[in-house]
Amino acid sequence: MSNSLKEDLVEAGTFGRSPQRRVERFEDLVPGRGVHRSEGSEANKRLRDFAVGRMKDAGLEVSFDRFGNIFGRKQGTRPRQKAVMCGSHLDSVTNGGQFDGALGVFAGIDAVRRLREEGFRNERPIEVVAFTGEEGSAFDIVLLGSAALTGKISEEKALASEDPQGRSLEQVLSKNGYLGEIVRDLTDVECFLEMHVEQGPVLFSEEIPLGIVEAITGIVWLNATIRGTENHAGTTPMGMRKDALVAGAEAVGFVRERASRMAAASKSSTVGTVGRFDVFPNGMNIVPGRVELGIDLRDVSPENLEELRDETSLFLKELEQKYGVRVEVGVAAFHRPVSLSRDVIGAIEASAQGVGVPYRKMNSGAGHDAQNMAARVKTGMIFVPSVGGISHSPVEWTHWEHIEYGAQVLTRTIKSLSAA
Amino acid sequence: MSNSLKEDLVEAGTFGRSPQRRVERFEDLVPGRGVHRSEGSEANKRLRDFAVGRMKDAGLEVSFDRFGNIFGRKQGTRPRQKAVMCGSHLDSVTNGGQFDGALGVFAGIDAVRRLREEGFRNERPIEVVAFTGEEGSAFDIVLLGSAALTGKISEEKALASEDPQGRSLEQVLSKNGYLGEIVRDLTDVECFLEMHVEQGPVLFSEEIPLGIVEAITGIVWLNATIRGTENHAGTTPMGMRKDALVAGAEAVGFVRERASRMAAASKSSTVGTVGRFDVFPNGMNIVPGRVELGIDLRDVSPENLEELRDETSLFLKELEQKYGVRVEVGVAAFHRPVSLSRDVIGAIEASAQGVGVPYRKMNSGAGHDAQNMAARVKTGMIFVPSVGGISHSPVEWTHWEHIEYGAQVLTRTIKSLSAA
Repeated sequence: MSNSLKEDLVEAGTFGRSPQRRVERFEDLVPGRGVHRSEGSEANKRLRDFAVGRMKDAGLEVSFDRFGNIFGRKQGTRPRQKAVMCGSHLDSVTNGGQFDGALGVFAGIDAVRRLREEGFRNERPIEVVAFTGEEGSAFDIVLLGSAALTGKISEEKALASEDPQGRSLEQVLSKNGYLGEIVRDLTDVECFLEMHVEQGPVLFSEEIPLGIVEAITGIVWLNATIRGTENHAGTTPMGMRKDALVAGAEAVGFVRERASRMAAASKSSTVGTVGRFDVFPNGMNIVPGRVELGIDLRDVSPENLEELRDETSLFLKELEQKYGVRVEVGVAAFHRPVSLSRDVIGAIEASAQGVGVPYRKMNSGAGHDAQNMAARVKTGMIFVPSVGGISHSPVEWTHWEHIEYGAQVLTRTIKSLSAA
Repeated sequence: MSNSLKEDLVEAGTFGRSPQRRVERFEDLVPGRGVHRSEGSEANKRLRDFAVGRMKDAGLEVSFDRFGNIFGRKQGTRPRQKAVMCGSHLDSVTNGGQFDGALGVFAGIDAVRRLREEGFRNERPIEVVAFTGEEGSAFDIVLLGSAALTGKISEEKALASEDPQGRSLEQVLSKNGYLGEIVRDLTDVECFLEMHVEQGPVLFSEEIPLGIVEAITGIVWLNATIRGTENHAGTTPMGMRKDALVAGAEAVGFVRERASRMAAASKSSTVGTVGRFDVFPNGMNIVPGRVELGIDLRDVSPENLEELRDETSLFLKELEQKYGVRVEVGVAAFHRPVSLSRDVIGAIEASAQGVGVPYRKMNSGAGHDAQNMAARVKTGMIFVPSVGGISHSPVEWTHWEHIEYGAQVLTRTIKSLSAA
């Protein structure tokens, strides 16, 4: 594979890792030694600096905008044509994996290097972007940089966003030297490409080295509170109980069953999860009086997603009658599903065929900056397999040969899209 | 009602209450102002001192044993006959109710006063006992004083039992002046009577002022750990999950359903509760990797209880196959059901009829010192209604007229049993 990409990624993997060390093999990774590169951290700034240096080495002209998004631009032979943009993010979750985000940025830089080495002359400008604060693990808005860049949120809201220490994004960017002057309007961008680790088990379990994303899932988060009556577990007959846990457990079963059935019936990517589940007072011999649920529903079909949301809310409310409990349900988050560009998907597919790498089309169950970009420009995504489907974990890993396949397909796609 | 019993109980209700005040009416009780009389606390010592004073006022000869159990003895006309003993405990849970325990002690003292006032001459000696540390809220053994007195646990184990500050029972009793010299062997005791608040909703909801306990429930506590695989909620297809919460939720439903069915089929007091339920890592968008359950199963029938325990364990283990999870189940506690004495039950019943108070026979779903005493002497229990079925709470309450009924029945029962 490309030695320079590997070197970049190994170097990038040291930023935010504690104790600092280079890790080249999955087997060497030690749980608990993931990367810590939240936006605003010292490690994040150091990785930014490293990426900027590599952009410049690759001959890119570097700028950053009001939101700290970094752009590296290679002029084209037809400079007034709209640019082909690619990239991802540099921040990580706490104790995260080393490729999540960084891969897409350094693969973009490497693509520019490859094109230079082979003497390719791009017609459209090519830009590599590193987005600010994708993970939402420091500032309170997920996909922060791309949301601000695409106008999904206002400049004021983005800059006022706060991290857990109460620092605004503006303060943090100002301090670390990444508060730029420009605000891009994207009218000079033709399309966007993001290469990313899958973060799921599909490619790994099917042993397919490359995924071409057709749609990014929509997400509904529901918060529900079920209030029953706290009672003595020994002295309260079964028929006289209003057990909040019994009602909550039934909701868990419903979400599982309904999402599975919908996924099977529509052959879509429906998933439904109760991830958060708190029981009060949570004593061995006390009938639970209150349960709080956090429910995550996802589908690439807007109709499916709405149906799942409505049926889940209805089911929760019907528990009131069945168990004599009171139920409150609220929508904590809602992101519409996003379909990616058929043109870009076609270009990626042709590139994969040209490279000769097996691939499959698929959906993304996780959110990505690409979903914000898709609202403004033609957008595509390339997935490479996550070993064991694991992400947001110190043991996240992608095999080097799969990274190389992805990088080749990315390079080839940029090449084809850069023809005006 | 007896003014002296009411005065005693109102006074007793001030010990450990913060801010200290007398509460005579349910409506005056303020949540969060329960009593705090854990064994070893200053409030507990003060209530002990008060009870000893009232015993002496009633003409009782006071002694205490190696475990801090307090005995007040009234000699009989046939002093070599075995004694009639009655009583309960003076300690409370943290933020508990004022009658739980104290009622049985002060009603016993009041019974002695009533008998003295009417000039009754008891043949058997009469003893009033206040047991040490019934609640297990300070020292790590429940029913501590009665377990030690009846030899269920050794003297060494009882005295070495520790409170959360790491003080042994021996140290605490020595410090507060209640470490006695004697060890009772109970060969001089004929029978034991305990009057207690029901702590459940049966009498209150059926509007019956008195309960005669036929059996004290057996208890099995199971701890179960279900281990699945923690995954990204967005990227892990439904069919590729090992969701520990889905498996755990099914166990909650099973316990509820099986215990309800058994209670209905056997007309027994079967109850089954999942009271403790912890989910890990408990994040909105993470498929839960581990769930820990605390399961409380109770029945007065040993066969039912064993069946329920075995079926629940089996159901939990079968989740392994169904969901691809690993399940560990352990028995954290096991108390056999205890049947109370037919002779004593008959004496209480005759007394209730004599007093003219409506009553019902019932089981106790909570544990009591009486269950330890029943292993050694003929034992009976009298329940009075808990308003709303509430106990272990600042709003625990029993109406004064029900307390008076209970006291009259207790007095009459002592009277009849004290005939040799």
